[in-house]
This record gives sequence, structure tokens and C-alpha cells, in this order.
Amino acid sequence: MTKDSESPVYIFDSKLLDDLDLSEYGIKFESNGLSPCKPEPGIIIRPLSTHDFDKGFTNVLSQLTRLGDVSKKDFLDRFQGMQKAGCYYPLVVEDTEANEGQGKIVGTGTLEIEQKFIHSCALRGRVEEIVIDSEYRGRKFGKLVLGLVTALSKKLNCYKTTLECKVENIPFYGIFNYKEDSEKFMQLRFRD
Amino acid sequence: MTKDSESPVYIFDSKLLDDLDLSEYGIKFESNGLSPCKPEPGIIIRPLSTHDFDKGFTNVLSQLTRLGDVSKKDFLDRFQGMQKAGCYYPLVVEDTEANEGQGKIVGTGTLEIEQKFIHSCALRGRVEEIVIDSEYRGRKFGKLVLGLVTALSKKLNCYKTTLECKVENIPFYGIFNYKEDSEKFMQLRFRD
Ligand SMILES: CC(C)(COP(=O)(O)OP(=O)(O)OC[C@H]1O[C@@H](n2cnc3c(N)ncnc32)[C@H](O)[C@@H]1OP(=O)(O)O)[C@@H](O)C(=O)NCCC(=O)NCCS
Ligand SMILES: CC(C)(COP(=O)(O)OP(=O)(O)OC[C@H]1O[C@@H](n2cnc3c(N)ncnc32)[C@H](O)[C@@H]1OP(=O)(O)O)[C@@H](O)C(=O)NCCC(=O)NCCS
Repeated sequence: MTKDSESPVYIFDSKLLDDLDLSEYGIKFESNGLSPCKPEPGIIIRPLSTHDFDKGFTNVLSQLTRLGDVSKKDFLDRFQGMQKAGCYYPLVVEDTEANEGQGKIVGTGTLEIEQKFIHSCALRGRVEEIVIDSEYRGRKFGKLVLGLVTALSKKLNCYKTTLECKVENIPFYGIFNYKEDSEKFMQLRFRD
Repeated sequence: MTKDSESPVYIFDSKLLDDLDLSEYGIKFESNGLSPCKPEPGIIIRPLSTHDFDKGFTNVLSQLTRLGDVSKKDFLDRFQGMQKAGCYYPLVVEDTEANEGQGKIVGTGTLEIEQKFIHSCALRGRVEEIVIDSEYRGRKFGKLVLGLVTALSKKLNCYKTTLECKVENIPFYGIFNYKEDSEKFMQLRFRD
């Protein structure tokens, strides 16, 4: 268990995000030292860290779907499980000035990398859990998170990246050229 | 690299498959020592092993989609990568009597387990790469592979299991109560 006084551990090396270029999608930052990972003063997009439970990470997730019971221990155990598996790239948007400078998580989105034998032992990306806190929507943070996970999947050499989404969000994913596929998404639910 | 003379290494413990019961789907084996993992004399369903490249595993996959170039070394490297990640459960159907008793892979299907924070830090199953050799179709092997990966996902405590499939295969997945979801499957392809 991580004590609050310890330095945060990041789930992957944030250097991976440094050179991601979203200009092919018309996302450009010309001046002021701003970039996709630092889109406004006080706002940063970075890998999930061990400190993010206390910064409200699960509150953001609860705006996407049923969160259920997730204690700090559950969060840290799952964090370690994901880190060990080595194929999870969850990003968070932090408002570093909120909560009197303690910081607050206001958005998230995850890339997962799947190993294949097909397509010459390719890698495949999956985008999961894209959500922005309702009070922070409309400021392009969702677009940036999606752009970053998409560009990261390309950089990590995925042959394709896929996701499932509600019909009303198809245009949002269309910004990055995700297209509705002819394959059908099927599910079997065992419990809530 | 595994030498041919060495014993096969299995990608997960085959004991996990032993007590999977498919009777709730109307699949029963009453006699003769047959079971879901041993559906006919000479046919076994088991975890993928390091020997399966030589038994034609990739030939079966090539009947599903573009296989590309996959050497024995590529196969073994990917096998190890999946084994290390610990969340891949690929099954194969082997005709142990084919090739003068050397054995031949005639079908496959993979369960993958994804770690989540949502739904009380749940696990989610994904079914991938279900395919039966064209000369072995219609003998219920596809149904058994799908039934086994589905029952395994339930046993491993997934809250849901999902897959993507062609429209014409919806009834096949319907056997195990997979239902078309309202969410749309979107893809972005970087290369072939
Ligand atoms: C979808 C969501 C992540 C968008 O985040 P956001 O930060 O508010 O969106 P942005 O400000 O980055 O919007 C970027 C662009 O997408 C558009 N857009 C935003 N939400 C959209 C939607 N649901 N459908 C279509 N377009 C949308 C915006 O109009 C904007 O267009 P512009 O660049 O032409 O101005 C956010 O609304 C959300 O969290 N929704 C609830 C959870 C959810 O549905 N997640 C997706 C699950 S599939
Ligand atoms: C789909 C596939 C895996 C089925 O395997 P199979 O061993 O031939 O199928 P089974 O013998 O187990 O058939 C089981 C049942 O499903 C039915 N079925 C088989 N294929 C079907 C299909 N494509 N659509 C609907 N029902 C199908 C059979 O009629 C049988 O029904 P029954 O139990 O009422 O007799 C096989 O046809 C295949 O490999 N196809 C090419 C690859 C592919 O499309 N894979 C799925 C990708 S989404």
C-alpha cells in the first residue's frame, strides 16, 4: 500500500506521451508552452498514478457507468495488477489548481494493447473508459484524451485500434477517423 | 526456443478446463468417457502449447483472417509474451490421430481477461479468433470451443464477456446467449 506521503508511482512512463503529435487531426498548440498534454494553464494530461484515488479518479469513472464499491486498497491492487500485466495505458486529466492546489482528476481514458498471432503477430489497441467530469466538458479535454490514446496506439505499432460506443457518440469518435464497422458487438452479461 | 524433442509447455493449466459444465446449454456427454474437452475418440480440446506451430495452428488461423508472416520463432515469442501477461486463454482442438498420430490442430478460440476499475474492479472477458478448420466444421467443435471459453470466463469471475462477429454468425453466438448490444463497434485501421 502506498502512503500518502510517498511520491506518486505512474502506471507507465510519461515520456511515452511527450512526442505525440495531434496536428494531423487539426489539433495544434502554437504558443505559451501549451501542448496536448498541457492544454490550458493548470491542466495536465498524464498517466494514472497511485495518488489519483485521493484526487477523485473513481468519481470521474462513476459518471460513465456503475462504479460499485472501490476502496483505496481495491484501487491500488488493481493498479498493480494492470502495471504487472504491462498492457494498460490509462490517462487522466488533472486540474492541478483545484482543491486548493491539491489537484483533482477531471477526466480519463485508457488504451489497452492486445497481443495477437494473426496479422504477423500484430498488436491491437482498444480504447476504454473515456469520460470527462460533467463540469469540465466542452473544453476539448475528451478530444485530447482520445487523440492521445489513439496516437499512442499508433506509436506502439498497433495494426488497428477499436472501441465500442453509444450511437450518439459516433461523431465524437469520428474526429479521429474511427468508423463504424460491419462486425456486430455482442455481449453476455453474468452479473451487474 | 523450444526444441521439438522437449515436452510441450501449455500456455495455462489445463486443470482450469476440467470441471467446465456445458449442460446448461444443452451440451451433455452421457457415456464412453467423452466430455466437452474430449468430444470424440481422438479429438481433444486443450490449452495452446509450444508444439502447436508444428501441428498447424497457424494454418487454422489463416482460415479466419490474414495471418501474414509468422515463423516458428515469432510464434514462440508471442506465446511467451501472452504467457507473461497472464490474461490469455487460447484453446485448440487437436485431432490426435491425424498425420500418422503426430496430431493436427483443427480449431481454436481464445478468451482474454481484461482488468477494470469499474463495476467494483471487475474482470471482463473477450472472445477472439474462433475458427474451425474447414474440413472439420459441422461436428460441434466450434460450439464446444465457444462454450468452453464462455464457461471459463464465468468461472474466472468475469462480470460480462463480449465479442465482435459477422452478422451471419450472430445465431452461432446466440447458442450461448450472446446478444447484439446497442453499442456500436468502431475501428481505426493503421495498416493491413
Ligand atoms: C463524450 C465526452 C468524453 C466528450 O468529452 P468533452 O471534453 O466534453 O468533449 P470535447 O470538448 O473534447 O469535444 C470535442 C468535440 O467533440 C464534440 N462532441 C463532444 N461530445 C460529443 C458527442 N457525444 N457526440 C458528438 N460530438 C461530440 C464537441 O462538439 C467537439 O466538437 P468541435 O471540436 O467541433 O468543437 C464527454 O461528453 C463525456 O464524458 N460523456 C459521458 C461519458 C461518455 O459517454 N463517454 C463515452 C463513452 S462511449
Ligand atoms: C463459425 C464456426 C467457428 C462454427 O464452427 P463449427 O464447428 O462448424 O460449428 P458447430 O458444428 O459447432 O455448430 C454448432 C451449431 O451452430 C450452428 N452454426 C454453425 N455455424 C454457424 C453460423 N455461421 N451461423 C449460424 N449458426 C451456425 C450449427 O448449425 C450448429 O447448430 P446445431 O447445434 O443446432 O446443430 C466455423 O464455421 C468457422 O470456423 N467459420 C469460419 C471462421 C469464422 O467465421 N469464425 C467466427 C468469426 S466471428
